[in-house]
Amino acid sequence: MTKNDFIEIKRIVYDAGEKLKVWSTENFHVNSKKSRTDLVTDVDYQIQEYLIEEINKSFPNSLFLAEESGLTQTPDKNEYWVIDPIDGTVNFSRGLPEHCISVAYVENKEPTIGIIYSPFMNLFYSATKNNGAYLNDERLKPNWAKNFEDAMISLGNERGNTYKYFKALEEKVMRIRLFGTAALQIAYVASGFLDAFISIRSHPWDVAAGHLILEEAGGEIVDINGKNVNIFQADALYCNPYIIQDLINNLKNIQKFQ
Amino acid sequence: MTKNDFIEIKRIVYDAGEKLKVWSTENFHVNSKKSRTDLVTDVDYQIQEYLIEEINKSFPNSLFLAEESGLTQTPDKNEYWVIDPIDGTVNFSRGLPEHCISVAYVENKEPTIGIIYSPFMNLFYSATKNNGAYLNDERLKPNWAKNFEDAMISLGNERGNTYKYFKALEEKVMRIRLFGTAALQIAYVASGFLDAFISIRSHPWDVAAGHLILEEAGGEIVDINGKNVNIFQADALYCNPYIIQDLINNLKNIQKFQ
Repeated sequence: MTKNDFIEIKRIVYDAGEKLKVWSTENFHVNSKKSRTDLVTDVDYQIQEYLIEEINKSFPNSLFLAEESGLTQTPDKNEYWVIDPIDGTVNFSRGLPEHCISVAYVENKEPTIGIIYSPFMNLFYSATKNNGAYLNDERLKPNWAKNFEDAMISLGNERGNTYKYFKALEEKVMRIRLFGTAALQIAYVASGFLDAFISIRSHPWDVAAGHLILEEAGGEIVDINGKNVNIFQADALYCNPYIIQDLINNLKNIQKFQ
Repeated sequence: MTKNDFIEIKRIVYDAGEKLKVWSTENFHVNSKKSRTDLVTDVDYQIQEYLIEEINKSFPNSLFLAEESGLTQTPDKNEYWVIDPIDGTVNFSRGLPEHCISVAYVENKEPTIGIIYSPFMNLFYSATKNNGAYLNDERLKPNWAKNFEDAMISLGNERGNTYKYFKALEEKVMRIRLFGTAALQIAYVASGFLDAFISIRSHPWDVAAGHLILEEAGGEIVDINGKNVNIFQADALYCNPYIIQDLINNLKNIQKFQ
């Protein structure tokens, strides 16, 4: 991938975000007889089709791993795009601005391009391998908490067990948040808005772009033993490097990690 | 207050939001030697001063109840402005877009004007008593969940006890969120983005504007016994009317409500 390829894929994702704004307004504000779930499925699918079509125009013979339309098996090649047309679908279905488009290019299981775009909040994150990460046009130099007690931690969702994470952490850190979109919360860590995101049962399309963006911003992605992990790890800590050990020590009190 | 007064206070809050964007960019992006806490305190104070000055120009002899600069006692009159220059200060201090300006006009303990503005997300909520609530220029007709299992609930922060709310609710509702700004989460309920916000230990400036906006959108504000409450109630449920009883029934499992 060249610098021009990076510019091209950023344009495609940006345009998809503009379409997302238009389509969501059309779908949710007209008197539709469809259910909320069907409307979301429609927009999700439309965005994915748009991305695949545009990527194929600019990058012929591309392969895809994507949440919608059954492209959920890792392609039998070393290079492919990983797409989540709408990360934070439940938020999106309710009108909450906390959702995003996530697109990554993966080579030999490692993301080499990552883009996360929240069109309703005008947050456009992007990174290429070894060239740093950006929010809009500003290079990310996150101002993270150095101490665990100053940390802002956000959580994924694990129905029936989320309270255990709160119990283990809420008196140890500054604040806990739960925004309901994995990709955007990883991006929030990359820009220093948060210090860690605890990803639970995630799929590659939830985390591939964020993985690279966070790495390029100086963050680390580890498992509960502190070992670096790739985008196929379902449970992982997307973390400011200063607080990893404290985070791990406190999470080990949770039964599932014992 | 007349219709023109409402237009005037909306202009003032909108302008304060524009200042917030400029001042936060100046403060957080230059190489300041100040601590993050001091920077936030500065911007918080500047926004409050701006609001008070502009309101006094347009509405001479106004009285104020406000979070910063010691105006935290209810004025000894029946009419006053209630101001939170930045609700979600911790979020703001980290750069998170989830924060807002909250301004209300209170007559005989009841808000008659309410404005909540999230400048980074372009969400401008407003309401006057008996005239409905608006998001930007659209009248709010929230499409709330009718059943508790479809509900999106958001929580305030009660250090050391938040996990109890998760434990009581997370298997009963669709999703739980924690965005870290009381005023904006109440506004999210008013626009149907959420079904309830559980406010814990709130001050009048956190909730006064949201109280009116939610009421005018058809929502209800009750205590744990289902009784309607005013803006001086520290713990309250800001709720879609369909799920109040289910929410109360489930929260009663939490020790502090027994």
